[in-house]
Amino acid sequence: MEKNIPYKTYLEESEMPKQWYNVRADMKNKPAPLLNPGTHQPMTAEELSGVFCEELVKQELDNDTAYIDIPQEILDFYKMYRPSPLVRAYCLEKVLDTPAKIYYKFEGNNTSGSHKLNSAIAQAYYAKKQGLKGVTTETGAGQWGTALSMACAYLGLDCKVFMVKVSYEQKPFRREVMRTYGASVTPSPSETTEVGRKILAAHPGTTGSLGCAISEAVEVATHTEGYRYVLGSVLNQVLLHQSIIGLESKAAFDKLGVKPDIIIGCAGGGSNLGGLISPFMGQKLRGEADYRIIAVEPASCPSFTRGKYAYDFCDTGMVCPLAKMYTLGSGFIPSANHAGGLRYHGMSSTLSQLYDDKLMEAVSVEQTAVFEAAQKFARIEGILPAPESSHAIRVAIDEALKCKETGEEKTILFGLTGTGYFDMVAYQKFNDGEMTDYIPTDEELQKSFAGLPVID
Amino acid sequence: MEKNIPYKTYLEESEMPKQWYNVRADMKNKPAPLLNPGTHQPMTAEELSGVFCEELVKQELDNDTAYIDIPQEILDFYKMYRPSPLVRAYCLEKVLDTPAKIYYKFEGNNTSGSHKLNSAIAQAYYAKKQGLKGVTTETGAGQWGTALSMACAYLGLDCKVFMVKVSYEQKPFRREVMRTYGASVTPSPSETTEVGRKILAAHPGTTGSLGCAISEAVEVATHTEGYRYVLGSVLNQVLLHQSIIGLESKAAFDKLGVKPDIIIGCAGGGSNLGGLISPFMGQKLRGEADYRIIAVEPASCPSFTRGKYAYDFCDTGMVCPLAKMYTLGSGFIPSANHAGGLRYHGMSSTLSQLYDDKLMEAVSVEQTAVFEAAQKFARIEGILPAPESSHAIRVAIDEALKCKETGEEKTILFGLTGTGYFDMVAYQKFNDGEMTDYIPTDEELQKSFAGLPVID
Repeated sequence: MEKNIPYKTYLEESEMPKQWYNVRADMKNKPAPLLNPGTHQPMTAEELSGVFCEELVKQELDNDTAYIDIPQEILDFYKMYRPSPLVRAYCLEKVLDTPAKIYYKFEGNNTSGSHKLNSAIAQAYYAKKQGLKGVTTETGAGQWGTALSMACAYLGLDCKVFMVKVSYEQKPFRREVMRTYGASVTPSPSETTEVGRKILAAHPGTTGSLGCAISEAVEVATHTEGYRYVLGSVLNQVLLHQSIIGLESKAAFDKLGVKPDIIIGCAGGGSNLGGLISPFMGQKLRGEADYRIIAVEPASCPSFTRGKYAYDFCDTGMVCPLAKMYTLGSGFIPSANHAGGLRYHGMSSTLSQLYDDKLMEAVSVEQTAVFEAAQKFARIEGILPAPESSHAIRVAIDEALKCKETGEEKTILFGLTGTGYFDMVAYQKFNDGEMTDYIPTDEELQKSFAGLPVID
Repeated sequence: MEKNIPYKTYLEESEMPKQWYNVRADMKNKPAPLLNPGTHQPMTAEELSGVFCEELVKQELDNDTAYIDIPQEILDFYKMYRPSPLVRAYCLEKVLDTPAKIYYKFEGNNTSGSHKLNSAIAQAYYAKKQGLKGVTTETGAGQWGTALSMACAYLGLDCKVFMVKVSYEQKPFRREVMRTYGASVTPSPSETTEVGRKILAAHPGTTGSLGCAISEAVEVATHTEGYRYVLGSVLNQVLLHQSIIGLESKAAFDKLGVKPDIIIGCAGGGSNLGGLISPFMGQKLRGEADYRIIAVEPASCPSFTRGKYAYDFCDTGMVCPLAKMYTLGSGFIPSANHAGGLRYHGMSSTLSQLYDDKLMEAVSVEQTAVFEAAQKFARIEGILPAPESSHAIRVAIDEALKCKETGEEKTILFGLTGTGYFDMVAYQKFNDGEMTDYIPTDEELQKSFAGLPVID
């Protein structure tokens, strides 16, 4: 064990980043623009501002400004739960008996239980600043809804959450956390929206999906005076806010005099991965440094590894703009045995472009292997990880074991996005030996791809 | 807002305490010794070592050594989740509009969700060092059982937990966390022990109590080769290990150049309170400084404020040594509407003696007022507190509001012992307006006191 690297590195308050980093500014090939679903023309700021707050629209469309000041009020909120620690996984290294040096950036030490709070407070802040009364959103596993509820409670904004029905029923405690923070939580699809009623009529007994909950939240935002819609992943603005994860990680590494070789993050819509890798990818794009960057996704929802790079609907109701992304088709729903998040059919446009440009890799992993890694990690490192985060743990362990074979002393960084305290139903399945895997067949994916819109 | 005090103060790894502090060494009136339940003579080291590990027996009986070295293996484990932050509650101060300066020491940022891990790793370490196969214990709200499971998983020790039946049923997720860490969890009272069968025969349909689960765990430890019993609160050794909380707090305050005026902690068996106040009480005992120290207990289980200072059984089955303490009688069980922990009938002997010597105060609070404080704190400071910790929050807020009236700029420190992620059933009751209060009547207490043993 080297003596100079502590188990945990916290930046001082004065060392915390004061600007977000916008990786698009350094991309040669910019991410494709959002398209109007009717005209198939790029969405204008004016069109977008019916759905999103004005300042967030600016951030969404800004492909040029590399650094954007974080407003003081957001910096103050960040100080309540940030900086998050950069942890050296000494105990894991020892048990794996690997020459690799493993680090993780742990984002779970706040009540939302994940990194989602980083963007929630930013989006709620801009909504408040614009004089809005409230915001609407969707949530699946529940981290995003919890994070937004917390941000809104802090700022005194109303918060309406549409929660995927299967999660609403399986995770009553997540719902109660949101209610404790004053949010209203509606199971989706619901009878409260036109799109919800349509979906219920077409698919009676459906347990819902993220894409469907998005449609409902957007409908309520656009039909209610003083409300806008906010989204916890996928969008450029979200990756911008989440860059705080990577910026803090890089500042801590610089302080320690360490440079990672491999950077690993789980990927659903891309919020955590995009945030974690941003400043490192920036160096790579500018030719200043090289890193191996790996996106890890569930084998049951493999948008990077088996999806198509194409324009697609962001939601099931097809009311949102079209995004060019790696997608499984907006009708794709992961099989019922899939636990936790990372169940979105598409992927951030920015990450999709970077992946298409071969600036990063992607792998998919099956969930029993993921929970094996989760349990091992919990017992060795003392943190019970979220199922989502455990995808990154799985691949970090695999890469560390490769180093054991080759004898290479690589430095691995992975994003530990959150804790699994509200995922004990899934852990119980694993503990009881009842967890199963599922990989969609080629036929299933072809059927889903058939629903992709045709863009001239 | 003063500019020189950060929101959160973390000690550097090199600044972390390397010794525990034993407050008994500075007490003029030592806590009364444990008595053999048969002979009523002080328990000898030999007698105690049938139940507890040898090193822990030494610590239990040592009233003289002020500082005890923390073994390197425990220091290494502490580095995985410690130091815990000393947080300045700027946001709470602002909302309360108080001149008081509020600080809290937050022990919830580890998977056990509370401070219990500080003693669990110590007790598991000494058991391992003695060459034992495993340990047994009881758990109520579940923090202690989770903490011990984590420590045992880390060290490769077997862990058998008797969980109060009502908690076992109401908190299946707590149970699953323990199982994820490899512990076996048995609802208590159970048919697996003699004392359990006796209690079930006498009280069919009972939902259990901590005192009863202790009896079962002790029976299994003393009847199984290579096993010992460990306890998460009440004992002197536990307060010793928990002194890490107060030592870190004091070191952080010293670094900031701040001295608290009032120190507030919730009190069930006394593990958190005893640990938090230890070094401050030491200064007070040595005449070096003065502090107002307040124990906060539930009005439904008021051992300090309405109990008797007398020798009593530590457990329902009356198999454990007798302890002199503030007690409600070993047959006392809080009313069914009582949520969370802080439900033990007695109180640490050390704290009982300090309280009897008027070196600290105690107040009791009702649970709806506690959950009001919890919800307010969650919304303002972003941490969803455990019901237990919220007792301290309630009184910290009350004291801060008194400062607002008087204009005094007092510095308040309270112990935020843990998070409420597994207490959402109680939060749901509060959110739905269905939470109630209960204060035991004098008649109930008199009836319970009648069961106190008669000591010559």
